[in-house]
Amino acid sequence: MQLNLSTDIALRTLIYLGQKGSPATIAQVSEAFDISKTHLMKVVMTLVAANLLISERGRNGGIRLARDARDIPIGEVVRQMENNLALVACMKEQVADDICPLMPACHLRGVLFKAQQAFLTTLDESSLADILATQTK
Amino acid sequence: MQLNLSTDIALRTLIYLGQKGSPATIAQVSEAFDISKTHLMKVVMTLVAANLLISERGRNGGIRLARDARDIPIGEVVRQMENNLALVACMKEQVADDICPLMPACHLRGVLFKAQQAFLTTLDESSLADILATQTK
Repeated sequence: MQLNLSTDIALRTLIYLGQKGSPATIAQVSEAFDISKTHLMKVVMTLVAANLLISERGRNGGIRLARDARDIPIGEVVRQMENNLALVACMKEQVADDICPLMPACHLRGVLFKAQQAFLTTLDESSLADILATQTK
Repeated sequence: MQLNLSTDIALRTLIYLGQKGSPATIAQVSEAFDISKTHLMKVVMTLVAANLLISERGRNGGIRLARDARDIPIGEVVRQMENNLALVACMKEQVADDICPLMPACHLRGVLFKAQQAFLTTLDESSLADILATQTK
């Protein structure tokens, strides 16, 4: 049970910017976490498209949080970054009936969906600001 | 966000045996799901060690559920099979302080642990019997 590396990078980039309190360059973030600029750029593009980051050009440019840290729920970051929320093969959006001989007399998908919702809902209870807090909530 | 293939195989093996209602051979299960006998054997050994399956030798041997399906919580199966519950690198049991420059001023681990507990607790609310039920609970 693991999150994608891209999700990990996204969360750490947001936390880094939140801790820094000012814009940072791609080079600064990639050096801080020892990750490739190419991978980081892809993650940043997804975060910009999701209105979680703003990317500005120019001498004082860089990337910065698009919203106050209190308005960035962790569940939203994970949903945006995990392009595949299928915990097992039969949870994929388009599943052929013959993917598994257990179907349709099997309620595994429903049970896993419910647990995943509990996971994401719990993440939504915490914002980026909670993660940055110097004292545990 | 995905479960290991071994967890997927474990869940499907238990559901298969529950639906069948009688012992099955490794060959029968591996054919049903088109998975390798070697991988299946490893999964079965873990399930036997976890007191979820019983493996019997002999002419009428095979594998069968070790308990009534109502006494097999899905959360227990997932915990037994997922040998790495670390959603991100810093959640691993032994983490060097220098794994991430954000530590220790970062509460991400705590937030992810809490969400993972919600995931597993929700899975514990369903048993193998619920997954086998012909009507949705």
